[in-house]
Amino acid sequence: MLPVAVDAMGGDNAPGAIIDGARLAVAAGIPVVLVGRPEVLAELAPDFDHIDASEVIAMGDEPGSAVRTKKDSSLVRAAEAVRDGHASAMVSAGNTGATMASALLRMGRIKGFSRPAIATPLPVLGADRPNILLDSGANAEVQAEMLAQFARMGAIYARDRYGVTRPRVGLLSIGEEAGKGSPLVKEAYALLAEPGWQEVLDVEFVGNVEGRDLLGDAADVIVTDGFTGNVALKTAEGAAKMIVGALLEAFGSSDQARQGADLLAPALLPLYAQMDPDTVGGAMLLGVRGVCMISHGSSSPTAVLNAVTAARDLVTADMVDHLTAAATV
Amino acid sequence: MLPVAVDAMGGDNAPGAIIDGARLAVAAGIPVVLVGRPEVLAELAPDFDHIDASEVIAMGDEPGSAVRTKKDSSLVRAAEAVRDGHASAMVSAGNTGATMASALLRMGRIKGFSRPAIATPLPVLGADRPNILLDSGANAEVQAEMLAQFARMGAIYARDRYGVTRPRVGLLSIGEEAGKGSPLVKEAYALLAEPGWQEVLDVEFVGNVEGRDLLGDAADVIVTDGFTGNVALKTAEGAAKMIVGALLEAFGSSDQARQGADLLAPALLPLYAQMDPDTVGGAMLLGVRGVCMISHGSSSPTAVLNAVTAARDLVTADMVDHLTAAATV
Repeated sequence: MLPVAVDAMGGDNAPGAIIDGARLAVAAGIPVVLVGRPEVLAELAPDFDHIDASEVIAMGDEPGSAVRTKKDSSLVRAAEAVRDGHASAMVSAGNTGATMASALLRMGRIKGFSRPAIATPLPVLGADRPNILLDSGANAEVQAEMLAQFARMGAIYARDRYGVTRPRVGLLSIGEEAGKGSPLVKEAYALLAEPGWQEVLDVEFVGNVEGRDLLGDAADVIVTDGFTGNVALKTAEGAAKMIVGALLEAFGSSDQARQGADLLAPALLPLYAQMDPDTVGGAMLLGVRGVCMISHGSSSPTAVLNAVTAARDLVTADMVDHLTAAATV
Repeated sequence: MLPVAVDAMGGDNAPGAIIDGARLAVAAGIPVVLVGRPEVLAELAPDFDHIDASEVIAMGDEPGSAVRTKKDSSLVRAAEAVRDGHASAMVSAGNTGATMASALLRMGRIKGFSRPAIATPLPVLGADRPNILLDSGANAEVQAEMLAQFARMGAIYARDRYGVTRPRVGLLSIGEEAGKGSPLVKEAYALLAEPGWQEVLDVEFVGNVEGRDLLGDAADVIVTDGFTGNVALKTAEGAAKMIVGALLEAFGSSDQARQGADLLAPALLPLYAQMDPDTVGGAMLLGVRGVCMISHGSSSPTAVLNAVTAARDLVTADMVDHLTAAATV
């Protein structure tokens, strides 16, 4: 298989943690090509294949103009490598907006999908796989048809990445009954309730779901606009962080508490690991003509390994072909 | 002071838990009048003043038609008691939509506020008071002017209920910079950034905030549309519930874990109490010409006591007068 193109320059811990992660991937048998400044790669990663890119898009750069002006950036070159058949997929922990823009402009979108969407895995404690939320931030405004497209994308992704045989798709709203929600949601509901696409794609539309269902068992794939999805994702992350922070403080608040925490550690560590962003893995840009993994900015080597592994799995599963077929159902 | 009208018939645990809560309020020195079926009140609460109402709006009733057709319901009669000067405020743990509709139709709205909004307290672990989120579900679609109105309402509420001297108001968006978000949010940002209202109301607009800030220290009042607000609220509740549930399971997973949990209990109980919906208190309908507390459906007697206490405090603070003055700033 073609190597996975990894943007060595993107992310808070780049290039060190990215290269370390790429090395873990190679050790696991996945071919990787690093994209970045030649002098950096020559020094830190002489053992890797390189794609040279003289520029770097910074985390704070405005995505659209950065991609237009920094044509020799590692992000743009990584996307071009996929387009030109030199890489099977791309992975970046850099500027999310610029990753989207690079992938969209260089790979192009899949015909039938109006706009790409970001699909984010949401850990469900106690379950063996996460739920999928999309769009979690690419499109602040959408039309109902786009929500119906996101449903198709998300269902294919859930099957190809997590092996969900008959994905249950829910529409995020503010009440479970069909008539609840904004006019946009009601219109999308009508489109999603049509039996045709569900039968062809072997998907079940389970109707409206609510915020509490994001981390629950009501649906495998939850569809919403990028504004609501981004707010919900960051709300869930913020709530988890606040509770975990308060717990850790309580654990260290006295000798007795410390003793209790030590006794509880074996039971708590698996929960902690399940909520660790490095374990959950990165987000996925769906709707472009290639596999594009968006790893979080603070990615560790383990997070990079997980993202590269997911990219390889989705290439092997022919996800882009499945998406292309689903786009016209 | 005039008594607080308590809807004895609304809520999952009505009338028992509601009457018990009203009794706690009376014991705390707050006058209460119970609204409900005369035969029920005569039997269960002979020691209270009553307002008779022969009908009950059920939790599942469609709010608009229920309020129109059940004119002698406890909810409608409670709102009328406030309007007619027989009660100082109303409290219900019943059908939220019908509570809103009753208050809006019977009390009327404050001139200058286009639509009422639901303000919900969000517990911030370790802080001495919650953040306020509004609108958390009354209006699935809003205009930018309404978000600016919600900001005024929320600021007055934060001051009158929680003593925040100079409330910091944030606008919920998907990025902190001024240009981030949907067209609606950008338009609202421009309105909120105007200095005039901030000076007159002694408020600070802190710009955009994100989902993670709902439970953080970036703002005291967070303004959004009722769709996003409801999703965010239920997402935060769902995340908290999932984590607490997983913790409790881990605590009981072995003898060693149980022993650890016993040692930790003194440090954890305050956190647990702070997250308890009964402690946090109910939501508040802002923008109507009266004080209307919306207690959650599963309210315990303590939750009812807290809601009645909050209602009394807001009456004493002249919140409705303050809102009326703020509506035209």
